Amino acid sequence: MKIIVIGAGAMGSIYGGHLSLCNDVTLVDTNAALVEKINHDGLVLEENGVSNVYKPKAQVKADSSDKADLIILFTKSLYSKSALDGVRPAIGPDTYLMTLQNGAGHERLLSQYVDREHIIIGTTEDNGAVLSLACVHHGGRGVTNIGLLSGEDGKILHDIKECFDESGFDVKIHSNIQRLIWDKLMTNASLSVLTAILQCDMSYIAANENARGLCLKLIDETVSVANAMNLGFDVDEVIKKVLSTSESNKGGYTSIMMDIKNSRCTEVDTISGAVVTKAHELGISVPCMEMAVELVHALEGR
Amino acid sequence: MKIIVIGAGAMGSIYGGHLSLCNDVTLVDTNAALVEKINHDGLVLEENGVSNVYKPKAQVKADSSDKADLIILFTKSLYSKSALDGVRPAIGPDTYLMTLQNGAGHERLLSQYVDREHIIIGTTEDNGAVLSLACVHHGGRGVTNIGLLSGEDGKILHDIKECFDESGFDVKIHSNIQRLIWDKLMTNASLSVLTAILQCDMSYIAANENARGLCLKLIDETVSVANAMNLGFDVDEVIKKVLSTSESNKGGYTSIMMDIKNSRCTEVDTISGAVVTKAHELGISVPCMEMAVELVHALEGR
Repeated sequence: MKIIVIGAGAMGSIYGGHLSLCNDVTLVDTNAALVEKINHDGLVLEENGVSNVYKPKAQVKADSSDKADLIILFTKSLYSKSALDGVRPAIGPDTYLMTLQNGAGHERLLSQYVDREHIIIGTTEDNGAVLSLACVHHGGRGVTNIGLLSGEDGKILHDIKECFDESGFDVKIHSNIQRLIWDKLMTNASLSVLTAILQCDMSYIAANENARGLCLKLIDETVSVANAMNLGFDVDEVIKKVLSTSESNKGGYTSIMMDIKNSRCTEVDTISGAVVTKAHELGISVPCMEMAVELVHALEGR
Repeated sequence: MKIIVIGAGAMGSIYGGHLSLCNDVTLVDTNAALVEKINHDGLVLEENGVSNVYKPKAQVKADSSDKADLIILFTKSLYSKSALDGVRPAIGPDTYLMTLQNGAGHERLLSQYVDREHIIIGTTEDNGAVLSLACVHHGGRGVTNIGLLSGEDGKILHDIKECFDESGFDVKIHSNIQRLIWDKLMTNASLSVLTAILQCDMSYIAANENARGLCLKLIDETVSVANAMNLGFDVDEVIKKVLSTSESNKGGYTSIMMDIKNSRCTEVDTISGAVVTKAHELGISVPCMEMAVELVHALEGR
């Protein structure tokens, strides 16, 4: 397959590197020094104590001559639009766009570039961290969950599964991928966002009475929206799971908490913001979620 | 007048000290070392560059033998209940209870000790800070606004004005004192509480788009509640005033912001919490205010 991976951060490098073993992969990143380094020396992934070198191509802009079979978006959601604009020449009528980005609602942007039947959404349990230029630590490994936004589970998902699994991933195809995305969102739009606002570790949310109360309110609003989408969540089960995640992560800091701590912009718009946008579409009141989004943005600006 | 001042912090010392010039004043404070120091050496107020020594009596508990004409509550609102329990022996059928504490709704607690016709509520523009044991800097001076919670403006308010003014204060009697208390609350329940949650200076609220939006929501909820109490606020005027306070206080930190910064408990329950309590009484929805109260409490606990 001819694959373009947009964004050569930790996740883009992990997927781009591995997929280059069996596919024609181009990493697109606006960082010219990084692109040059990858083309010159390859991409190093530290995996299980071994430094593996992968040789995907790298470009600062997508080549206009060839259309891609698959484009995978791995930028921070803040940069999704400009990243997609940059690869527009490579998007043909048969090109699929895939996002495994954190949060929900990315399909809203993707559908400005391809029709809904060519959008693949999902989540990944793999994780990693950039160590230095073109060198990434590939930490935990897990399942890559994918599904089509619209239409039947077509041949494409099976082709992708085959090609990804050959490259070292573990893909699961889902007929109801939104259920899975919103399941992940349940924790991020409550627990994670609260740790950012309160600047606390993950365990504090279950441990402090007021923080826990706020967390339950945010869960309640998220479940209301998800269930209006017919995703069938049981609020008590969600609460149990989120509080258990909190309790078992003493001293654990979420990435959105660290973003605020380090004065970086966050992905709150695709986390809590995705709940708010969907709630407005469906006419559901989510005052706490709205306030959470505004608070995180207000904290970003300090 | 036989006056008991509860709480020998900055404000209690300023009022207790001055009132002792023309009245029989007892300062009641649970700090035994402070009580001993005041009885031995007097109370020092640094005023206009001069150290003035005042000689009120001081006790750790109210004497049960004499009933007071007036008891003034100057504790942090958190300690109001135990403080009032401590002076209960001095409360007779003719005793008036007065609060000039920050926030609103203190009458709810006070009415457990005297009938509503014996409750005087108000605000003070004087301010000060404790410098050392029994030594207080008396900073800005201003008007002491008072009014009866229920009933006509009786003789008592005029007696109090005469006795306070003789002691160096500037008392104004109000027939609609709640209007004035809620006017002060408009700023504290929006701007001040947001600076605590966002841990920012006062000017940031008007300067940051998201913080300003949150401030306007909190003002909107507060005005809804106040106007359901027939206090007749114009929301645009309130917004203008609050934003102007924000803009003119670059580098200014609110006391509630500093309380959170220094891991102290705050008075949020008598500020935003007073709006929430009144809103519930009146059946008005104030989701942002509720969330603000919970967030401040969650921040207190870190």
